Amino acid sequence: MKQQVHFLTLATADLDAARAFYRDGLGWEPLVDVPGEIVFFQVAPGMVLGLFDAEKFDRDLGRPPGTAGVSGLTLAHNVDGPEEVEWTVRAMAAAGAKVLTPPRPGEFGGVFHAHVEDPNGVVWEIAHNPGWHVDGTGRVVLG
Amino acid sequence: MKQQVHFLTLATADLDAARAFYRDGLGWEPLVDVPGEIVFFQVAPGMVLGLFDAEKFDRDLGRPPGTAGVSGLTLAHNVDGPEEVEWTVRAMAAAGAKVLTPPRPGEFGGVFHAHVEDPNGVVWEIAHNPGWHVDGTGRVVLG
Repeated sequence: MKQQVHFLTLATADLDAARAFYRDGLGWEPLVDVPGEIVFFQVAPGMVLGLFDAEKFDRDLGRPPGTAGVSGLTLAHNVDGPEEVEWTVRAMAAAGAKVLTPPRPGEFGGVFHAHVEDPNGVVWEIAHNPGWHVDGTGRVVLG
Repeated sequence: MKQQVHFLTLATADLDAARAFYRDGLGWEPLVDVPGEIVFFQVAPGMVLGLFDAEKFDRDLGRPPGTAGVSGLTLAHNVDGPEEVEWTVRAMAAAGAKVLTPPRPGEFGGVFHAHVEDPNGVVWEIAHNPGWHVDGTGRVVLG
């Protein structure tokens, strides 16, 4: 099995709120948008985030309604500097996100970051991390 | 905010089981491996999957232990044909995964897929989807 995720699909209680946040608020462009069902956004080369109606998500997996929860995941978005952390968090808050921890220095490594929750409870870390970069081939370098 | 996820971090109850499954069973190469804490795997250009000890995950977000759950997400891995779905699922099962739905045709679009659960409850869809491809620039094309 190749070391590759092609889709990350998240159970989404309020798909309209998700669309309003990502598409209208942050200006993201859907790859496919099926009202009442799913919105796909490309979020890395070859990789798609799918926001899928939570009831249909549970039904697809043969689970009782209300099973699906996203408390055990975070998404991180890295930016080029502390100021960009600040304005990204402001843009997310303006689009309807809840700031869980304001932009501030992390515990180590010169990280400067914030945690922000989208309208469906998905937690994003917005971070500047000087020990992280992506080389010209897409390879991530850490530390 | 750019339309980009750089890290997907999942609360992982049994990190040793995760390592045994992805690294030893499937042959994935960790980007960074900190025993008892986190294992990072690169899973797309510029994008990393982090499997993070669940207790530490909850503590980091200031939540009570046992909060984090991954019932509301699936990861998909696309392959080139039905036979590759079958042998990928066999390889995952041999590495310790639980097959939730065996390889079979999907409801539409010529999809052939299976659902498999990793040792920490993360559900993977292994799929052949003739309506999906990634072009030479990393752009996903659907439908």
